[in-house]
Amino acid sequence: MGKNVVAGIDIGGTNTRIGLADDEGNVLLGTCIATDKHPVADMYVEVIYNEIETLLKGGGSEPYGLIGIGIGAPNGNYHTGCIEDAVNLPWQQVPLTAALNRYYPTLPVKLTNDANAVALAEMVYGDAKGLKDFIVVTLGTGLGSGFVANGDIVYGYDGLAGELGHIIAIENGRECNCGRCGCLETYASATGIKRTVFELLCNSAEKNDKSVLRDIDFHNLSAKDIDKAAREGDSIANKAFEITGKILGKCLADMVAVTSSSHIFLFGGLAEARELIFTPTIESLKKNILFCYKNKETGEPKVKILPSGLGNKDTGIIGAAALIWKDK
Amino acid sequence: MGKNVVAGIDIGGTNTRIGLADDEGNVLLGTCIATDKHPVADMYVEVIYNEIETLLKGGGSEPYGLIGIGIGAPNGNYHTGCIEDAVNLPWQQVPLTAALNRYYPTLPVKLTNDANAVALAEMVYGDAKGLKDFIVVTLGTGLGSGFVANGDIVYGYDGLAGELGHIIAIENGRECNCGRCGCLETYASATGIKRTVFELLCNSAEKNDKSVLRDIDFHNLSAKDIDKAAREGDSIANKAFEITGKILGKCLADMVAVTSSSHIFLFGGLAEARELIFTPTIESLKKNILFCYKNKETGEPKVKILPSGLGNKDTGIIGAAALIWKDK
Repeated sequence: MGKNVVAGIDIGGTNTRIGLADDEGNVLLGTCIATDKHPVADMYVEVIYNEIETLLKGGGSEPYGLIGIGIGAPNGNYHTGCIEDAVNLPWQQVPLTAALNRYYPTLPVKLTNDANAVALAEMVYGDAKGLKDFIVVTLGTGLGSGFVANGDIVYGYDGLAGELGHIIAIENGRECNCGRCGCLETYASATGIKRTVFELLCNSAEKNDKSVLRDIDFHNLSAKDIDKAAREGDSIANKAFEITGKILGKCLADMVAVTSSSHIFLFGGLAEARELIFTPTIESLKKNILFCYKNKETGEPKVKILPSGLGNKDTGIIGAAALIWKDK
Repeated sequence: MGKNVVAGIDIGGTNTRIGLADDEGNVLLGTCIATDKHPVADMYVEVIYNEIETLLKGGGSEPYGLIGIGIGAPNGNYHTGCIEDAVNLPWQQVPLTAALNRYYPTLPVKLTNDANAVALAEMVYGDAKGLKDFIVVTLGTGLGSGFVANGDIVYGYDGLAGELGHIIAIENGRECNCGRCGCLETYASATGIKRTVFELLCNSAEKNDKSVLRDIDFHNLSAKDIDKAAREGDSIANKAFEITGKILGKCLADMVAVTSSSHIFLFGGLAEARELIFTPTIESLKKNILFCYKNKETGEPKVKILPSGLGNKDTGIIGAAALIWKDK
């Protein structure tokens, strides 16, 4: 038997990526299938099985030794092994781990949601190695999070913990897709900063605040555009980052009061704006944090807010694989 | 050797209560010393040692078998075993577990803060038996909390987790003793509801809102007075409970989004108002909670908000003792 690997499966609305990951977070071989072309869940699982078997033989003379399967998916529930109510997937309530266990009855098969998978990847392969109490915040289209306490992911009673994107950041604030108002992700996410730009464009006089962002429509405006504009001195773009960081930092200060985390890692598209988002976030955290979480001598918060240490690793696959490698 | 016991030590600003607790949460023998009469920490520890030894001999012909010592104290840090910066205690930065371990070098000696001790008591002897993910909120002079995730207390990186009383409930809200504004405990605590009564008395016309609470000064007004007035139909008192529950329920909804807890236990003076505080809290939680934490069929929140199941047990002592019994 060749090298031991875990099959990491990263399920998205359009594509499902499957890779064989070693214990150092390298994806040795990978492939991709179309999620949305498989409306029947059982057939989708069979295709995944076939792809895994093909990949395992790709190791040359000695096929890879599969020691487990990890899956990351929107609304993936660790406790039940089911994908539950994911609006962008073709099926509902799929008992995914049970279905894969029929093909691999003796192997561990585990499932979690995307943000927890990133937190696991950070813990097993990234800059959270050895940390016991930290938070990972994914700033993409929405805001996801994975909380780690006492060295374990907080899944919660029903496996649905970590919805930091849906704490109420601003009372009676922006409408959220969840049906409520003021959720953190309506402010602190790629979509949130875009909405902030539009709020600023609406509120500011064109004469005073010239901005290239007035030439981009809502659908085409991206966090990257705002990043680029900010670096070129655009005042609207810079203000948008400041507002985003201010709201995010305030909510993170509350989270530190509850969890006493040592580190908060920011991951995803918006986090790639680096100092543009980190500086106002850290400043706001510092302003809002309870005194006992500050270093007595320096007055600085003890918690470190850092960019993810995963670099260019294929996070979706290795995060899923980390579900298995974590316990090896 | 007689029955196995744990010495539970409950340290308050005025008194320190010491008791021998069995594995069922019964305090077999107990005593009390004055905390504030012992300005020298070493001598205080020696007195505690002598009291424990005296209690152990109180078992009759067979002295009790001491299997460990648990301590609950304001600002007690589980990780370091130190009391840190407790403003109401005579000493600062006392390495309490190390000091007691000098007398009992082979026994486990553990320390935590008051609210975590209540959470442990609830887990070991109360209604949280067998629960893995729950929150205990103590509504006394301030608001304390203990979070349990994956069956363990969340102590956090520096042992100071669980400061739910100091998340910002109302932006730019009431001044808090911590130096910031709008902390949850300035609203949801015995002191908080008193402040709410005064806000209502200030805002409402005496002609429309007759209230017996206008005859009690701030220092003498207690949560019990407000409770009594509310039950007699006093509109100010009833409004005060409604406002308190509304703010508490909103913050608890945020906490469920992060922790996906199955139960939240309310403990302490204000919780004794029972339905007066539970009804508006549960209503507000229901209004503010994210859809995935509701039962799909009934629309009710899955999390249960309950009064503590500890009844008349001596929580301070048995909570401290539970630090040791939990792992037996």
